[in-house]
Amino acid sequence: MLKGIAASDGIARAKAYLLVQPDLSFSKKSITDVDGEVARLNDAVSASKDELKKIREIAASSLGEEEAQVFDAHMMILADPEFVGAIETGIKNDKINAEQVLHNVSTQFVETFEAMTDNPYMQERAADVRDVTKRVMSHLLGVTLPNPALINEEVVIVAHDLTPSDTAQLNRKFVKGFVTDLGGRTSHSAIMARSLEIPAIVGTEKATAEIKADQMVIVDGNSGDALVDPDQADIDKYDQAAKDFAKQKAEWEKLKDEQTVTKDGKQLITAANIGTPDDVTGATDNGAEAVGLFRSEFLYMNSAELPTEDQQFAAYKRALEGMKGKQIVVRTMDIGGDKHLPYLPLPEEMNPFLGYRAIRISLDRQDIFRTQLRALLRASNYGNLAIMFPMIATVKEFKQARAIYDEERAKLIKAGTPVADKIEVGMMMEIPAAAMIADKLAKYADFFSIGTNDLIQYSMAADRGNERVSYLYQPYNPSILRLVKRVIDASHAEGKWTGMCGEAAGDPVMVPLLLGMGLDEYSMSATSILKIRSLMRRLDTKDMKALTDKALTEAETNQEVIDLVKAHTRA
Amino acid sequence: MLKGIAASDGIARAKAYLLVQPDLSFSKKSITDVDGEVARLNDAVSASKDELKKIREIAASSLGEEEAQVFDAHMMILADPEFVGAIETGIKNDKINAEQVLHNVSTQFVETFEAMTDNPYMQERAADVRDVTKRVMSHLLGVTLPNPALINEEVVIVAHDLTPSDTAQLNRKFVKGFVTDLGGRTSHSAIMARSLEIPAIVGTEKATAEIKADQMVIVDGNSGDALVDPDQADIDKYDQAAKDFAKQKAEWEKLKDEQTVTKDGKQLITAANIGTPDDVTGATDNGAEAVGLFRSEFLYMNSAELPTEDQQFAAYKRALEGMKGKQIVVRTMDIGGDKHLPYLPLPEEMNPFLGYRAIRISLDRQDIFRTQLRALLRASNYGNLAIMFPMIATVKEFKQARAIYDEERAKLIKAGTPVADKIEVGMMMEIPAAAMIADKLAKYADFFSIGTNDLIQYSMAADRGNERVSYLYQPYNPSILRLVKRVIDASHAEGKWTGMCGEAAGDPVMVPLLLGMGLDEYSMSATSILKIRSLMRRLDTKDMKALTDKALTEAETNQEVIDLVKAHTRA
Repeated sequence: MLKGIAASDGIARAKAYLLVQPDLSFSKKSITDVDGEVARLNDAVSASKDELKKIREIAASSLGEEEAQVFDAHMMILADPEFVGAIETGIKNDKINAEQVLHNVSTQFVETFEAMTDNPYMQERAADVRDVTKRVMSHLLGVTLPNPALINEEVVIVAHDLTPSDTAQLNRKFVKGFVTDLGGRTSHSAIMARSLEIPAIVGTEKATAEIKADQMVIVDGNSGDALVDPDQADIDKYDQAAKDFAKQKAEWEKLKDEQTVTKDGKQLITAANIGTPDDVTGATDNGAEAVGLFRSEFLYMNSAELPTEDQQFAAYKRALEGMKGKQIVVRTMDIGGDKHLPYLPLPEEMNPFLGYRAIRISLDRQDIFRTQLRALLRASNYGNLAIMFPMIATVKEFKQARAIYDEERAKLIKAGTPVADKIEVGMMMEIPAAAMIADKLAKYADFFSIGTNDLIQYSMAADRGNERVSYLYQPYNPSILRLVKRVIDASHAEGKWTGMCGEAAGDPVMVPLLLGMGLDEYSMSATSILKIRSLMRRLDTKDMKALTDKALTEAETNQEVIDLVKAHTRA
Repeated sequence: MLKGIAASDGIARAKAYLLVQPDLSFSKKSITDVDGEVARLNDAVSASKDELKKIREIAASSLGEEEAQVFDAHMMILADPEFVGAIETGIKNDKINAEQVLHNVSTQFVETFEAMTDNPYMQERAADVRDVTKRVMSHLLGVTLPNPALINEEVVIVAHDLTPSDTAQLNRKFVKGFVTDLGGRTSHSAIMARSLEIPAIVGTEKATAEIKADQMVIVDGNSGDALVDPDQADIDKYDQAAKDFAKQKAEWEKLKDEQTVTKDGKQLITAANIGTPDDVTGATDNGAEAVGLFRSEFLYMNSAELPTEDQQFAAYKRALEGMKGKQIVVRTMDIGGDKHLPYLPLPEEMNPFLGYRAIRISLDRQDIFRTQLRALLRASNYGNLAIMFPMIATVKEFKQARAIYDEERAKLIKAGTPVADKIEVGMMMEIPAAAMIADKLAKYADFFSIGTNDLIQYSMAADRGNERVSYLYQPYNPSILRLVKRVIDASHAEGKWTGMCGEAAGDPVMVPLLLGMGLDEYSMSATSILKIRSLMRRLDTKDMKALTDKALTEAETNQEVIDLVKAHTRA
């Protein structure tokens, strides 16, 4: 049995599919049999072509025509006489092994394509050349590349970690669960699993080392346990647990149109975090009472140039209409850090997470900021819009951002453009300095939304993407809880409200503490909403306040708080 | 008149020396007169040689033989037929201009040398080739390189910013002041100026654009004003001010052997930050009552391999003996972030300031940590030692570090090694999460030392070395003051003390606030001590407490706090 972090609920049982890159290393060798080496190359190329054809067919039928087209691009490279020809010529001229020449020629192509930094098409071709080279290399070396697109039976994916390009190739019909070596509740693998509604266990450290291909695996995404080669008793036990979980999900389902109310009758809001207007359906299907975080970055990232005011207006309008009067909180552009735009060159920074990003860019590049605000203001007439600014650190920044908003609003109204009467304007609480002066900020902001990932990262001075310091990602540490409490209390003292739109808002260990601190809105992955709504119906706010007081005053460490919550909520 | 940040006290008047890199850009050109082009190259090489010879002589007499030897290395490159020969051949073969061929050949040499990553000698040669190339290029292009080593009259250095390699070439006898475009109170230029005890103004934004070479400049490091081409009235006024300042310094001098006492009789400690045992003399000469921060990194950075226990012991012992019973707080190894050791490869990190550094390395690499602790424990018998751990974020980390210390101490005592009875073991307060649970940490730590640079950087989520976000370096922001207050109060509640070893502890605007919050120890650049001691004698703690309460509760911004302090302390 492997232990990991329970990253997505549910129980699944299927054969293991190891999504692990084989060793593609080789040595440079002189050769004498030139014709034999060229034949070896041609065999590898033709085996790669056959494989790509097969993958392309399956991908087209299971993933759709668009996803399949990437493999056309791969086949075109192998059909290009300049590419394969250059490798042949290299073998003949230099009398060295095919692996080395393939590597040299491929590197040259990739560098040429990548140098064309103003041409996104050529940049993609560079990625294609890399992928094809890996495939031909695998045939030369006689090792097997994982081909997730070929999966045609139910599997549990076992991987070191999953990247967005890995998950894009997975046929969702057959993938029943994830088990990974790395990652935490906020890693791509975990977020993806929750969005696919399949169980996942991350951070096992040794899944790929201990699980072999085709071994039966039971994934218990509720407990974080993975069972390898289970016996019949285990299978029976987990099948029963899976049935119980399905029943529980059916129970949760009944809460879809219910309000979020605690045992003692306190009404709260459970909301969804979304990334595009398309996600609105998933939010409402899962009973979201609001969208607590609409990341507006997609508009900027899925585009070859700055999105126009009209493009943005259309996207915001569609999302607002889809929510039918329920509030959507749009976060203004949060670019920088690890998010870059090809058409907006940002300075090279030694510590991008501590750099020029989010509102810092918006206040500097007011052209971009004002366009976004105008699009939002125009869309406000089609639903219930709220706006928040990311990465506010000081009162001065918030006042500046709000003044720009007020200016654009006044200009539109003067021009006769319809604008909603009431648009709440708030801010993300994700910088420790801002939390320390939440009382001051609450005088100017209509609401706060706590971003736990960044707040924890900055408070702990630990990059949440850096494995070496991942032990410092401690959402329950009393230091973090105290900052959260300050923010909530400060907002209430001014008659304002506070939400949370980090992963913690959907975490069953955190929710009792947040209830105890009086958090008003809980915004999470849409698929977590009903479970949390169900949990809240069983919790008493006064009881949770007693628990929270204890955690804030008596606990010294993250683990002590976890133990307190578990002891208290089980009792 | 230029306005900047007053970075080092004093008033100076001298001619401007522009330490500005000329434009060395060029275009590739075809040539027909090959012999003429080779002659042009040879002229530039021989002019460079003459110049280097002259610089070498002056450097040897003014800076010392060791500093002069770098110019020998440069001359050797110009005497190397492989280097100059390759350029000649390139001109003849390719028929392009000398600038382009020089650039190509130099790039090739640099890349070859730099590829030898395991050979520090060759890495230095790469830097030499770059420097020599710049010099020859300047002669080819007919522009003048600044040669700070040639300065032989009193000057004010005007620069964009000063790097350590710039300041290493300056003859301290002739340099009377600095004026720079960039930087803040904690930049290299500012720290260097304070250590040289010359006035400096940084962050003027436009000094290099507005000041011309040889213009007379008055540098008022007390106010942050630079006067260019002053008239006689100005000169008289500032000469008088300089005299007054000299008189004031003489007054401060009298406080050297006095204690640090406020107007109402509260006794405090003013201490020095030092980097090596050699700095102890400067500390005691400036009246330091303690060393509040001894950065132990020098032991690791000025070494080709990990320093042995005996090497460390000798250094600590020498420092302790030099302080004659006054306390030295040694900070254990603070490597990582922007400090790297050639012999200790650290992982490539996307955000090194949020990464694997300081105590995080020490707890992981206990071999290194235990060696340092043993050296410290053995040295403790020779003076008054305290130890502190950098970058503590959680109670668990502090307890772990202290447990390792206790183990090593017990082992040494068991082995009969003499160890001081009382060694205070404390921690740096530089991570917001730690400040939030200072009450918990105060149960285990004997003292806190607030590191303002990092505390501000993390609290504001703004890299202090990143110009784009330097506006967020706000030491007086109420958010930062509140964190500082929490720390001080928490230590006092447990009968412990708190010091500050960031630049803020020697800042006349911050000191009144720190007094008001009850800070116990003020550790700063040694040259600031007497000025701050004098300031404290004029301040009343109850009065400062009223000021601080106002700053903590009423002020909203950094600027409002500055205004409050200025209004209050002038009154």
